[in-house]
Amino acid sequence: MAVAEATPAIITLTTDFGIGSRYVAAMKGVILSINPRVQIVDLTNAVPPQDIRAGAIALAETARWFPAGTIHVVVVDPGVGGKRRVIYAQMGQQHFIAPDNGVLSRLATIESPSKMISVENPKHWLPEVSRTFHGRDIMAPAAARLSLGLPPEELGPPASHWIELTWPEAQHVPNRIEGEVVEVDSFGNLITNITREMLDRVPRRDTVLIACEEHETQGIFATFSDQPPMTFMAHVGSTERLELAIVDENASAMLGVQVGAPVRVTW
Amino acid sequence: MAVAEATPAIITLTTDFGIGSRYVAAMKGVILSINPRVQIVDLTNAVPPQDIRAGAIALAETARWFPAGTIHVVVVDPGVGGKRRVIYAQMGQQHFIAPDNGVLSRLATIESPSKMISVENPKHWLPEVSRTFHGRDIMAPAAARLSLGLPPEELGPPASHWIELTWPEAQHVPNRIEGEVVEVDSFGNLITNITREMLDRVPRRDTVLIACEEHETQGIFATFSDQPPMTFMAHVGSTERLELAIVDENASAMLGVQVGAPVRVTW
Amino acid sequence: MAVAEATPAIITLTTDFGIGSRYVAAMKGVILSINPRVQIVDLTNAVPPQDIRAGAIALAETARWFPAGTIHVVVVDPGVGGKRRVIYAQMGQQHFIAPDNGVLSRLATIESPSKMISVENPKHWLPEVSRTFHGRDIMAPAAARLSLGLPPEELGPPASHWIELTWPEAQHVPNRIEGEVVEVDSFGNLITNITREMLDRVPRRDTVLIACEEHETQGIFATFSDQPPMTFMAHVGSTERLELAIVDENASAMLGVQVGAPVRVTW
Repeated sequence: MAVAEATPAIITLTTDFGIGSRYVAAMKGVILSINPRVQIVDLTNAVPPQDIRAGAIALAETARWFPAGTIHVVVVDPGVGGKRRVIYAQMGQQHFIAPDNGVLSRLATIESPSKMISVENPKHWLPEVSRTFHGRDIMAPAAARLSLGLPPEELGPPASHWIELTWPEAQHVPNRIEGEVVEVDSFGNLITNITREMLDRVPRRDTVLIACEEHETQGIFATFSDQPPMTFMAHVGSTERLELAIVDENASAMLGVQVGAPVRVTW
Repeated sequence: MAVAEATPAIITLTTDFGIGSRYVAAMKGVILSINPRVQIVDLTNAVPPQDIRAGAIALAETARWFPAGTIHVVVVDPGVGGKRRVIYAQMGQQHFIAPDNGVLSRLATIESPSKMISVENPKHWLPEVSRTFHGRDIMAPAAARLSLGLPPEELGPPASHWIELTWPEAQHVPNRIEGEVVEVDSFGNLITNITREMLDRVPRRDTVLIACEEHETQGIFATFSDQPPMTFMAHVGSTERLELAIVDENASAMLGVQVGAPVRVTW
Repeated sequence: MAVAEATPAIITLTTDFGIGSRYVAAMKGVILSINPRVQIVDLTNAVPPQDIRAGAIALAETARWFPAGTIHVVVVDPGVGGKRRVIYAQMGQQHFIAPDNGVLSRLATIESPSKMISVENPKHWLPEVSRTFHGRDIMAPAAARLSLGLPPEELGPPASHWIELTWPEAQHVPNRIEGEVVEVDSFGNLITNITREMLDRVPRRDTVLIACEEHETQGIFATFSDQPPMTFMAHVGSTERLELAIVDENASAMLGVQVGAPVRVTW
């Protein structure tokens, strides 16, 4: 007998707990205790400890690949137990629960929140709430209840504002774009804040000069395999932004370049 | 048409295989070959190699967050292939399968097993059993069959005893509690064996002295954000036990403190 | 009311993205956007960057433990965006999607592919395909559509050949077997290409000599616990091949032995 089963809800976790942390498993246990049917996906648990900006970027780059209705829980939370709020936001067709510390504000530069709620109603939390692990005691149960159909409005009163971090944008000046490295990926590729759209103004991609700190390369290529191994090269990556790489090697480690390094495209 | 679907069973894995190990995936493949509908959750695969005590603590701290009926498989198994038994235990409303080497005995200090079985019936194992990977060949298939409803008694004869490790408890002496660090978490926080209940006897929390090796701090706080960054501080953590931390930093790495370090609370 | 629910499909991921990489999560998001009901399992995301041979071995050792019908996606893809094809293969009762760079060819030494298809039909990919992340844009959606029942033939035209890497086999010579280390596992055990069948020719297992580089040991044992801790010893491991280990320690780290080291069994 064929039966239309309900589509399982999806909850993702983005934390700085470290890979293999039992704290991640505790959150999953809490979620499954409330909704054993939900699909839980690790967006990443490798955000550097307390690095709100890195968590914000991982989330902003990855949430878009999940289906409408996905509930994203973000626990990069150095202020846990203090006065910072827990916040719910709807952006696009997706749902987010996070500490109100700016970790959602990179996403909001892509799509403004259509709904913001201050998560204050203890009815939907664990009965006992610790002062140091709101991911487990507040955010996980709130997300699990949303996944069962609880209207977000039940989580607390509307919020009119939240904490926003500034996200430096690359700048056009005559014959030049000035940007910076905003993320180093797991291959050591240097991902910049220079978008594909900005690069459309470059007159000739094959002769343009790209410099990152004292390291220079010429031309923007389509993919790694257009250049030989060990070559320092620039291309528009899967993030739709300019990326700098050393073919088949770890550019960040070999060049000593980190997040924040200036990148200049000159023609 | 609305249909009451069966709640999916949950199996967790706690191993010392290391993160990203294909041995973990082999166990998942075996489980899904028997029950493709089960939810498998990594409790942690980052137990240090052969560290039975660390595995026991991770399990004891985390299993409680999973729902009744969860089946926990623990593979920290330096004696694999020798004379050590594989054991099944029911504790509370949860099920455990592990080598009989003490890895379940920390949990048993919280709740005594209501059922213990020596896993000896090869009918429920893989047809061929290696001498070095009972996690895959015995424990995974046994857990998968339990998740399909097999009564635990089918796994083998009752066991009347198992191997227990000693778990040092903190001691009260006049004006003092003597304990130790029992776990270092992924943030480098130092988790002790001094419970919230023991601390209820402390007359004044704000003036009490806490020492770990030669490092001292005064007062027990509610959460990290009660103290400024870089401060060495004590609080009752999400484990309901005294924890020592350096705010926003890794206390274990900065102080060189490891599991086993003495902790003294004096008033 | 009892209802026969459809068995959920299984998709595994084998990548060199690194543990905790958000690129893995992006692939999972794409898959779940197409089939929210699928079980996704990380086979491993810890393949060393661009190491096609290591990915091929992890896959060949692990795929066999998954049920018939499993779809394995392999993204170790240094040639992404260049001329290399994406390929689908059926081997045994399982399905594989990977770049055509030899990463499937170790598996093919166990069971020849019964079907090979060049994945060329963009109808089943994401609408926009980057030049650097075909795992997300081509392989993930193709796998998700297979998991919904799409016939593999819809992915593209039949392929008559693919890239094969050579896999050195151990050699018998009189009174000797010459092999090599082909994998170092997460415990530091040295896994060789000398099979259990080859060892059947050894006249006496207890006196045979095994040498790996300058390190020697005598006898082939059944399991670790047959020898005391810290002993360098040989046994037939869970891979059904000769493995060299230091009991309770990391042989690779302690001896400085890596993949490719020669191993000689002499009698």
